[in-house]
Amino acid sequence: MMKGLFISIEGMDGAGKTTQVDLMKTFLEKKGYQVLVTREPGGTVIGEKIRKVTLDPAHQEMSYITEALLYSASRAQLVNQVIKPALERGEIVICDRFVDSSLVYQGKARGLGYKAVKEINDFATQGLEPCLTIMFNIAPEVSLKRINARGKEDRLEQEKLAFHQQVHAAYQDLVKLYPQRIKEIDAGRPIEVIQQEIEGILIKLIQEGEYK
Amino acid sequence: MMKGLFISIEGMDGAGKTTQVDLMKTFLEKKGYQVLVTREPGGTVIGEKIRKVTLDPAHQEMSYITEALLYSASRAQLVNQVIKPALERGEIVICDRFVDSSLVYQGKARGLGYKAVKEINDFATQGLEPCLTIMFNIAPEVSLKRINARGKEDRLEQEKLAFHQQVHAAYQDLVKLYPQRIKEIDAGRPIEVIQQEIEGILIKLIQEGEYK
Repeated sequence: MMKGLFISIEGMDGAGKTTQVDLMKTFLEKKGYQVLVTREPGGTVIGEKIRKVTLDPAHQEMSYITEALLYSASRAQLVNQVIKPALERGEIVICDRFVDSSLVYQGKARGLGYKAVKEINDFATQGLEPCLTIMFNIAPEVSLKRINARGKEDRLEQEKLAFHQQVHAAYQDLVKLYPQRIKEIDAGRPIEVIQQEIEGILIKLIQEGEYK
Repeated sequence: MMKGLFISIEGMDGAGKTTQVDLMKTFLEKKGYQVLVTREPGGTVIGEKIRKVTLDPAHQEMSYITEALLYSASRAQLVNQVIKPALERGEIVICDRFVDSSLVYQGKARGLGYKAVKEINDFATQGLEPCLTIMFNIAPEVSLKRINARGKEDRLEQEKLAFHQQVHAAYQDLVKLYPQRIKEIDAGRPIEVIQQEIEGILIKLIQEGEYK
């Protein structure tokens, strides 16, 4: 049994995940908890190098299968080197994207299938799952507009609207598949409103999980 | 159905594989065949970058699971971008190391198990298997001595004798598991003797497979 709490953050790019992760960290630390924030892909020296290979816009010839395996390789390193040790120390780990992202992007949008992608990820994580996933729901059109406003795009962000719509639909599939674990929030509202809702979810998780 | 012939070369480092692959290529080309030689991990721009991450001696913290997934990612790219197109063009593909290397190094020597490593590799290769595997059998002590004589070692080659003995035992397991596909040759003999045996195996493969 791990002593810590493992929370993952999901949703399309441009949904405001990073802002809320920072707010979550501050909120939990003020309550006296040790919080570790990490991101996927990357989060370790090895993972960052894998991330660089995965997202390089020059790699147009990358097969979808290669892409899925690189994400899971980076994840395996993050779980082994960072997440598991922190959970064993009893910390709260907030991970910006985890296995659900692979199910959505590689499994559904790339057409590799949930089952195959789930299997390689179960191998990568050795079955470790978040106790809570907060899914930031945003319309695919809004996501695309915000990404474009950021300027330079990486290889995945260059994908067109149809792709974004598939990603959105896949997240909806997962919300239905894992209603206990995944809490969906409407990310189209003001930052403070979303922040308040998330803090309520966190308090409930800590109380119900009898986390100290 | 693929029109070409897919041959993999296996065995421990220092067994003389590279020399014989060159001789095989020359032999087959003289007979008029189109031959494509490739190596693992690597063989593509993306694969070479993955290879660099995998074998970097600085990455001592790499988990065995990450390592196995990186090998399979590189392999997925090689299969998709190089091997399958060549086989579809009807060429003979000689691949220096393939899935068997992962079964041996990651499955057995790293202790991840044949089954789990086979599964991620079946995903990586989408089930593509060599029609012939030539396994260069050499004593683990000889392999280690030859590697050391080469000078600078990569991360995997720094492993100690016990590891090499496990690799050797695992190759013997595979020879028993796949007697039809894997031809074991004694790599302790002179180059010309090995060359002659391999050419005999190749002629038989071409005749029996009715390859033109």
